[in-house]
Amino acid sequence: VGWHVEAAITESGRGAGTPESVGDLGEWGVIAALTARMPAGPLTSVGIGDDAAVVGAPSGSVVAAVDLLLEGRHFLRSWSSAYDVGVKAAARSLADIAAMGAVPTALLVAFAAPGTLPASWALELADGLAFEAGRAGAGVAGGDTARADSVLLSVTALGDLAGRPPVRRSGASPGDVVAVTGRLGHSAAGHALLTAGVSDYQELAAAHRRPAPPYEAGPEAALLGATAMIDVSDGLLADLGHVADASGAAINVESPRLALGDPLAGAAALVSGAGSSSSGTSAAGSPASLALDWALTGGEDHSLVATFPPSAALPPRWRVIGTVHAGHGVTVDGSPYQGAAGWEHFR
Amino acid sequence: VGWHVEAAITESGRGAGTPESVGDLGEWGVIAALTARMPAGPLTSVGIGDDAAVVGAPSGSVVAAVDLLLEGRHFLRSWSSAYDVGVKAAARSLADIAAMGAVPTALLVAFAAPGTLPASWALELADGLAFEAGRAGAGVAGGDTARADSVLLSVTALGDLAGRPPVRRSGASPGDVVAVTGRLGHSAAGHALLTAGVSDYQELAAAHRRPAPPYEAGPEAALLGATAMIDVSDGLLADLGHVADASGAAINVESPRLALGDPLAGAAALVSGAGSSSSGTSAAGSPASLALDWALTGGEDHSLVATFPPSAALPPRWRVIGTVHAGHGVTVDGSPYQGAAGWEHFR
Repeated sequence: VGWHVEAAITESGRGAGTPESVGDLGEWGVIAALTARMPAGPLTSVGIGDDAAVVGAPSGSVVAAVDLLLEGRHFLRSWSSAYDVGVKAAARSLADIAAMGAVPTALLVAFAAPGTLPASWALELADGLAFEAGRAGAGVAGGDTARADSVLLSVTALGDLAGRPPVRRSGASPGDVVAVTGRLGHSAAGHALLTAGVSDYQELAAAHRRPAPPYEAGPEAALLGATAMIDVSDGLLADLGHVADASGAAINVESPRLALGDPLAGAAALVSGAGSSSSGTSAAGSPASLALDWALTGGEDHSLVATFPPSAALPPRWRVIGTVHAGHGVTVDGSPYQGAAGWEHFR
Repeated sequence: VGWHVEAAITESGRGAGTPESVGDLGEWGVIAALTARMPAGPLTSVGIGDDAAVVGAPSGSVVAAVDLLLEGRHFLRSWSSAYDVGVKAAARSLADIAAMGAVPTALLVAFAAPGTLPASWALELADGLAFEAGRAGAGVAGGDTARADSVLLSVTALGDLAGRPPVRRSGASPGDVVAVTGRLGHSAAGHALLTAGVSDYQELAAAHRRPAPPYEAGPEAALLGATAMIDVSDGLLADLGHVADASGAAINVESPRLALGDPLAGAAALVSGAGSSSSGTSAAGSPASLALDWALTGGEDHSLVATFPPSAALPPRWRVIGTVHAGHGVTVDGSPYQGAAGWEHFR
């Protein structure tokens, strides 16, 4: 049975006037409030309120991905609003659908929270989920709720390939170009600014709180002949490493093509300055190397990076940043990249 | 990106010889080990290892449901083995697919655990998930992993309607018969035996640990002309209440038709005896009323209950237990049922 809340949520704190916590709101109250805020989407014929959702899969297959978003691991309620968390939870899963070259159709949202969570938090979360689903052309078709000690979300995204084969990680060939669309390093830069307590470059902090994947570029890449594609969730080099491994090829990124101007460069200068205020030299290195590090290793921007045959006519939003070669592994300007601990982990 | 483990899992406890915890096993080790134990299923063309799964949806739509299973809320590691938890997590979601009259095709499994969780526990969990998915004719097509303070699972099940319309909750009409297939009250009886520390009737404890929904009866019910259907997850009366509400009709259950012999009757006698050993009279009432209570209000057996036109020729496994009338609400032998606090909650 879908969208049932445990009795334990419903029974705590019941009886007050205006609902102030999800416990006060009660089982059916939570479901009704969330449902009212999350449209089911154009392809959903059975939405929230039955045992399961029924969503159109016009091309005879469904593309599906699930991502967890856990309080304390993936977000902090002190740094992100409920709306931000909803956007991020939806974006993570929806980007996986786009990265297959598919069009998102629907989300299923499993949500657990303490009974004391403010009801307003749950409602703003629903607004964020609905906003991002709508930005991708999808809706919220179903879900489940339960009580837990901290907030957790598991978002399943569904999509349709419109008759095309999926764009996998394994199709890159030597001679292909590597192109990216969307932000690189903005989420990591925003995280660094928030950590350093620097309040400039609010757009980077916003990028950390609310990723904005270019969903429509996924099916576009498929139409342009993309041979492989992935969304940048772990970091550009790490995710290109997955493509290189799956394709049995090597990838070289040309750093001058990353065009690291503002806001990354300015933020890097601020963070480096903040880090060097007492010692005189920053452990993070020069601002330029820090900005490069964010772009190459920062995750969670959920941009799309794809490989294309050299003959592909790419629209301007696809920036060519490298090439595919025979061999294995990922290099930057012809050498292994040593800048980031995060990347070493993924070798 | 699907099936990625947070760096935090990978980094803890690394470097030992034989992997003993999921932390030792490491990111790709966890994924590789789980993948090897969970077949992708016959309709999955892209399984674990890419951004998203691609699963056949031959009739042009997909049926989808998600359920959370949280340690401490839905299971205890001291009562249930990892294999049991895998079976239960899969069964909860797969039963929702069957309850729409659909055939399960695939699961997506989001799994979070402490880095100290024994690796063997994760592997046995995968075996349980794979077993139950296989029993339903489905496979495990994708997932996600993360680190958390306790074990949590979010299982999304997908299914196909084979060209039939979905069997919703809302189609019951006065004159229809109500029929059930599968166990009623066994999980609740098993829970009561485990709580009382009674070791008889192991099959009931097993039913609590490992529900066994009759998946194939879901599409069968659709072919037999079922007008409404639901899986018994909250309890027979509660779930029939959902059908009655959605259909704008009343349902009466005839208790003599529930045929409450062993093992429920025997277990009820044992639990009543255990409860009355000091006071002489049991708070739970007579064994017969306790067995009836389990059957009417016990959840988690994930049996299927459906309504059919009176002319439907039902095979023996569909036991007729009541009828649909004009009105609203659910009665037992013509009267509101007062026996269980659980049911009052769902009024």
